[in-house]
Order: sequence, then C-alpha cells, then structure tokens
Amino acid sequence: MMNWDQIYEQAKEWVYQAGAKIRLSFNSTLDIETKSNANDLVTNMDKEIEQFFISKIRDVYPGHKILGEEGFGDNLISLDGIVWMIDPIDGTMNFIHQQRNFAISLGVYENGVGKIGIIYDVVHDELYHAMRGKGAYINEQSLVPLTKTTIRESIIALNATWVMENHRIDHNLMIPLVKAARGTRSFGSAALELVFVAAGRVDAYLSMRLSPWDVAAGAVIIEELGGLVTNLRGEKLNFLAQDSLFAAKPGLHQSILRDYLKEGKW
Amino acid sequence: MMNWDQIYEQAKEWVYQAGAKIRLSFNSTLDIETKSNANDLVTNMDKEIEQFFISKIRDVYPGHKILGEEGFGDNLISLDGIVWMIDPIDGTMNFIHQQRNFAISLGVYENGVGKIGIIYDVVHDELYHAMRGKGAYINEQSLVPLTKTTIRESIIALNATWVMENHRIDHNLMIPLVKAARGTRSFGSAALELVFVAAGRVDAYLSMRLSPWDVAAGAVIIEELGGLVTNLRGEKLNFLAQDSLFAAKPGLHQSILRDYLKEGKW
Repeated sequence: MMNWDQIYEQAKEWVYQAGAKIRLSFNSTLDIETKSNANDLVTNMDKEIEQFFISKIRDVYPGHKILGEEGFGDNLISLDGIVWMIDPIDGTMNFIHQQRNFAISLGVYENGVGKIGIIYDVVHDELYHAMRGKGAYINEQSLVPLTKTTIRESIIALNATWVMENHRIDHNLMIPLVKAARGTRSFGSAALELVFVAAGRVDAYLSMRLSPWDVAAGAVIIEELGGLVTNLRGEKLNFLAQDSLFAAKPGLHQSILRDYLKEGKW
Repeated sequence: MMNWDQIYEQAKEWVYQAGAKIRLSFNSTLDIETKSNANDLVTNMDKEIEQFFISKIRDVYPGHKILGEEGFGDNLISLDGIVWMIDPIDGTMNFIHQQRNFAISLGVYENGVGKIGIIYDVVHDELYHAMRGKGAYINEQSLVPLTKTTIRESIIALNATWVMENHRIDHNLMIPLVKAARGTRSFGSAALELVFVAAGRVDAYLSMRLSPWDVAAGAVIIEELGGLVTNLRGEKLNFLAQDSLFAAKPGLHQSILRDYLKEGKW
C-alpha cells in the first residue's frame, strides 16, 4: 500500500530544495545551450535540477519511474506503476531573460492517473499543489473550486503564434475565439499558465504542443478544482507523447470546444 | 525654482499610500462598471485612487495640472507647466480577474518633458522609479542601462490582437516581426510591460492605442536607461491624445522600425 501522504510531503520538500538551488544560481553565470532549434534553450540549471530530483527519487523510491524534460529519466512505453513527470525549469526562456515567470513542475501519476501536482513559482515563493481528492492550495491557502463563466467574460492564455498561419492548427479557428474573449494573455510558461487557470486568474489556456512534464502537475491541480484538461480535440491527454492542450473552467471548456474548436473535427 | 527632489520623494510616498489602499480593498467587494465597451472596465478603486492623488496634488502643488484616466483631473490643451499623468490602476481587467499584474502609474512632466516616472507593482511590492538624469531603480536597486540586442534574440510584448486583422495596423506588418522574434508575451498592463522593457525582461513592447497616463511614467524610466520610446511610426509621443506605442532597447528599436514597421510609411 503506497503512502501517498508521505510521497506528497516528500515531493514538496524536494521542490523547495530545488527552488533554493535555483535562487542561488541567480548570482552565478548560466551556461545556455540551444536544443532542437535556436529558440529551444536549455541551461546547466535545467540539467542540474533534473539530476537533483532523479537522484532523490531513485534513492527513496527505487521502484518508481521518471519522465524528465532533460532526458535523464526513463524511456517509457507505458504509464504502468508510479511515474514522476518533471520539468525542472518550465519557462526556460523566461528564466534566462527575466529570472522570473518560470516554475518547477512536478506531477506524480499512478497507472496513468494523476495523484499529485506541484508547481513552484520560485521567485514569488508560491507553491501551488494538490493531491487528488485532498484539495488544491497555493502555499497553505485553499484554492476555491472553479465556477462556470462565459467566453465574453473570459481571459484566455494563448500565444500570438496560434492566431497567425502555423502548421499546427488552422488559425481561422483561433481568431474568432480571441475576438469573442474579453482579452488574451501570454506568460511563456505552461506550468504557470495552468496554475493561473487553477487560481482563476485566466479562464482558459490553449497550447498547440506540449510535453507530458509541462502539463502533468497542472492537470492534477486544475482537475482537483473542477476544471477540465484535455487536448484541443477534447480528448484525454496522452502522457507518453507530445500533445496539444486545452484547460478551462467548467462550462467554458465545453462551449469553446463546441463553438470554436468544432468538437475536434479538423 | 522647482524642488524636483522633493516632488520625487512626495510622489513615491503617495504611490505607496495608494498601494496600501488597494491592498486593503482585496478584502472588500468591488463595484465594476463598463466604460465605452464591454471590455473597458472601471472599478470604484480606480476612481477612489485617482481622487486620492488629485486631492494630494491640489493640496500641496496647487499650480500643477493633472491628467488622469478616470477624468477627475484637468482638460488640457497644452503641456505647459507641470503636469501629473496618473493611471490609478493600469491593467484594470487584471485587477478584477487576477488581483495581480496591475500597477499604479504616475508620471510628472515639465513643459512636455518627462521628469519623474513611478510604476508600482502593488502585489509584488516592486516600485520602479526614475527621475531624469538620476538613474532608474526597482525599489532601492539600480536598474542597469539597456544594451543592444537583435530581433532573433528578443522577447516582444505584444497582444495577439495585433497579428489578427484589425483596424489599427496592417497585421501583415506584425506577423513577420513575431515570426522573427524569439518569443512573444502579453501581460495586460502597459505600465508593467514598459517596466519589463526597462528591467530587460522583454526587449520591446508594441501597442496600437494607449493614453498618456498609460505611458507617461514608463517612458521616463526606459529613456533614463537608454531605451527608446516613440509611437509605431517612430515619432515622438503625443501626450495630449491617444497614440500607438513602441518601446525597445537601443539598436532593436531602429532595426524593428526599419525592417518591420517600414519607418512608419503605412
């Protein structure tokens, strides 16, 4: 029998420790590399923080599996068992340019079901966290369940890229949505955009391509508050591959999916 | 002879007092009205804070003039003399939805020349401020002069609206700019987007229509750091009317104006 309370407390403790390491790094020089393309950046801190989590998890929970952005974890072909999904620094571009608006994102799943979600806004010392069935919190404060809203009163987090011609979605689906909404925002960190949905600061978040570690934690927190998290076709997320993402308040999720995303028929 | 040091200290003090009033309001109910259109919101706090500033300024500096977003100031036909330009809550939509990502913005101009700029991120207790010729600061810490950068390494603050067909600018000018940049962001507060340019967190900020009180303070802070602030045609801002806005690091401002904004020839 898994002691989930213990895993939850342990995971939060490690996240705080990782956050302290990142804060210390602000005084030293970053090594910045580019990954697959010029704008896909990675730093020594991304790698160091992922290694930190992996060594802790391997030590305390040797039977668990790990999916991590920097690739030091496991190559998984199934989500059986317990899987930790880690983005050591979500929003690396913000980390480099701004030294803010980035987060540590850590989700723990059991047989593909999200159990624990932790997102740490390091600079503002805000820990967003949830364990399935036990409520969601920012630091020690309860987050309130998400309530229904309409598109006309909504702020939507979405990057400008998706209303321009692009090879992931027909921008003519996106433009009427942006026109109907009260406003749009873009913060440059999926983890933070997801907790902004959880905290009711934005009403929906759409992205065309994210990885499991980008969304694993946020999905647990939003679902705990009654929000919905799917891909842009309204399907269950695939945590073994990249996928699109659509998180929103109840009611709003269904109406955007029906009226703007055409129930995924594209 | 005007004692600018005294005005600077006095203005910062009033901004802190106004911030304290706003923080207190988080526990009470907001009255929300819509202005010219459904998404142009105003609250009792916007009005109350503007009235607070006006009563203080009228009391201590009766000869000064005031331009304020909520219209309790003066109707000016010239910028002669000393003019205070006040946005009591810049980012009202964020204030209502998020209770964060808004700011108090206060600029003081003499014969149309910016002398003092103060922007207060109330929730994060970050006061960005500058007096012309005396350096720019975040709280007590100096901000460093802005350095040249290229479009390919830039993060640009810009709303998704401007890459869709709109009646303010040809979106076909904007799209290549967004494609060339490293990334885009949108925070929903012009004052904060301007101090993000000042702090080097974003490299440029573009907006199609802002009012004098939205940009008065930010322009002083950015120019103090060597950044450039004009309208989108590269012209000096008009502080007696609404105008477009284009703030950027040195070098980047010129290259975007030349290569993407076609030197304003549109």
